[in-house]
Amino acid sequence: MTNELRPVAPTYIGSLKPYQAGKPIEETAREYGLPEASIIKLASNENPLGMPPKARAAIDAIVNSGARYPDPNGHALKVALGQKYNVERNWITLGNGSSDILELVARAFLQAAQLDSDCNAVSSQYAFMAWQNAVKATGARMVAVPAKNYGHDLDAMALAVNAATRVVYLANPNNPTGTFFTVDELTSFLDRIPANVVVLLDEAYNEYLEPHHRYDSTELVRRYPNLVVSRTFSKAFGLAGLRVGFAIATPYVTDLLNRVRQTFNVNSLAQAAAIAALNDDDYLNESYRLNREGIERFYEVCDALRLPYVKSQGNFVVIKVGNSAELFDALLRRGIIVRKVVDYGLGEWLRVTVGLPQENERFFTALRELVVVNA
Amino acid sequence: MTNELRPVAPTYIGSLKPYQAGKPIEETAREYGLPEASIIKLASNENPLGMPPKARAAIDAIVNSGARYPDPNGHALKVALGQKYNVERNWITLGNGSSDILELVARAFLQAAQLDSDCNAVSSQYAFMAWQNAVKATGARMVAVPAKNYGHDLDAMALAVNAATRVVYLANPNNPTGTFFTVDELTSFLDRIPANVVVLLDEAYNEYLEPHHRYDSTELVRRYPNLVVSRTFSKAFGLAGLRVGFAIATPYVTDLLNRVRQTFNVNSLAQAAAIAALNDDDYLNESYRLNREGIERFYEVCDALRLPYVKSQGNFVVIKVGNSAELFDALLRRGIIVRKVVDYGLGEWLRVTVGLPQENERFFTALRELVVVNA
Repeated sequence: MTNELRPVAPTYIGSLKPYQAGKPIEETAREYGLPEASIIKLASNENPLGMPPKARAAIDAIVNSGARYPDPNGHALKVALGQKYNVERNWITLGNGSSDILELVARAFLQAAQLDSDCNAVSSQYAFMAWQNAVKATGARMVAVPAKNYGHDLDAMALAVNAATRVVYLANPNNPTGTFFTVDELTSFLDRIPANVVVLLDEAYNEYLEPHHRYDSTELVRRYPNLVVSRTFSKAFGLAGLRVGFAIATPYVTDLLNRVRQTFNVNSLAQAAAIAALNDDDYLNESYRLNREGIERFYEVCDALRLPYVKSQGNFVVIKVGNSAELFDALLRRGIIVRKVVDYGLGEWLRVTVGLPQENERFFTALRELVVVNA
Repeated sequence: MTNELRPVAPTYIGSLKPYQAGKPIEETAREYGLPEASIIKLASNENPLGMPPKARAAIDAIVNSGARYPDPNGHALKVALGQKYNVERNWITLGNGSSDILELVARAFLQAAQLDSDCNAVSSQYAFMAWQNAVKATGARMVAVPAKNYGHDLDAMALAVNAATRVVYLANPNNPTGTFFTVDELTSFLDRIPANVVVLLDEAYNEYLEPHHRYDSTELVRRYPNLVVSRTFSKAFGLAGLRVGFAIATPYVTDLLNRVRQTFNVNSLAQAAAIAALNDDDYLNESYRLNREGIERFYEVCDALRLPYVKSQGNFVVIKVGNSAELFDALLRRGIIVRKVVDYGLGEWLRVTVGLPQENERFFTALRELVVVNA
């Protein structure tokens, strides 16, 4: 077929790389001949507590309506979100996970850069790959600002914004590095960004922030009408498999996002599950506690092994292990799935999700054995 | 805020119109003060048999893994699809419903038309609105070829293809008109389309085709490497709320579609439900039988009332009712939701989904009363 006339895609589409997701348990079992039950997955920053029982009950109650299309306006979920986050329904956009939100922002505000007319999006080095791919799929130019201490260099990012910049992407906490900036640093940054440039603030890991770091995102959107806050139910809320996230933005921006949104982007079970999970404070509090305790154990073990790591406000830790590919494979053979971050330019690092205490200990045991062997 | 500096979207984004979906039952109940149980929805071409029990059982079996991300490669579902449709896994793209597939094709092959460089997509008058919106969101130019007898004028469409055409969209059967072309008409058309132009064949209603109209879509894709076949689980398979569809295309095209696909576009419950629904022949056969009998009743009633209609190979009938807005509202007040198609330029028509026999009869009774009143 090589010499044949074939469908023509824009050049920026052909150069896109598919996102490398965390290896699924079933796939690992298939490829390594391991029983599924023996495998632990610390690769995708999922909630190790598993499906929230209230969300499961909500699904059971609604699943028989599965032959009907979902509510395209997500009325009930928006009412629940509006109450929780103190925001009107026309400030809310629902997404098929927050990766959908990131893509909606890219598609609503970016277009292909031309020789005579630039269009760019600014983000930090080590920015979430789903955002990078969403930008590249529009043909806009990606501007990556070198990180400072593995986190955002907000001063340098503000300086990188030019007349052709349409969107600046921030993640707080950042994935894959776990870094964090304070609300004062954020507002100083926002004060420097022109009102016609969208600032997309990805808060996927918001619920894992320590209490003294928290701030009112809705209030920020009211103060800065160019700000779009993105949240997800895939992390602390425990619904990664269901696919639901949302954005908070002014009605003007929300209207644009909804013009590019697929009508039925959020399935009906996800809408019901999200309403149930949203106010399940017991599950959320337990998720927070378990994660914070786990993070501290990660620090202890890494300190003891003299492995460098970045302090994390997320539910994961990046650890500098040296030969990450070899360690990754050795862990896989032991049924432990972690995440390579070589695509982020962190070839000597692995990102490890905080799991249940017994899962963490199994990882630590393997790490001690393998790092000693490597040393 | 009107005079304020605001985020800038490409002009083609600002001119997009959100898709008007069928009115949800809950919304109708809210707005008209009707009990939900008294409302029948014949508006969205859903399967009136409701959730397939085997799909429900598959969801029950997997829902506890909802905190884990879905398999981004949809391995098990692709294996099942491959067996059923006799196609290799690398010829299959999964979508969040087939509307996602339509959007992936638009995004992979279209880009904004420039003054000095056209890029266009050809479709028929009365083409599915989700496709039209997907095209417009890329900034490509939409070429709508006048319909013939409410269906595709394939000769005129072949003539409309020019050097700037990247995609031709066909729907067989067509939504919203229900028209159909034969496989011989299709292959004559495909023979006339250059191999570098994608032909997207939307077969959302394929399972409702009468047996003598059916053809082997996979075989067609093997013969015409520029053909992309799109299918959905939202219609005959009864899973509209779950969101799952798929494309069959060559590995070259499939690879491009997967580059723009969101990694976790299909949720894990939908993947499991689709596998169960795919080979549920009892449910499928009953869906087909019920629909065909219902369609015949629609013809009888319309004939008796002397209302023009288009013969349909789908699970719906468009009926020329005159003042469609008035009839639509009168039906709503009686708790019967049907669909206006004024956005398609069919202002005197309504599209009505074939429901359960008792639902159809309730619609016919109302129609008889209201049409007599209107006459």
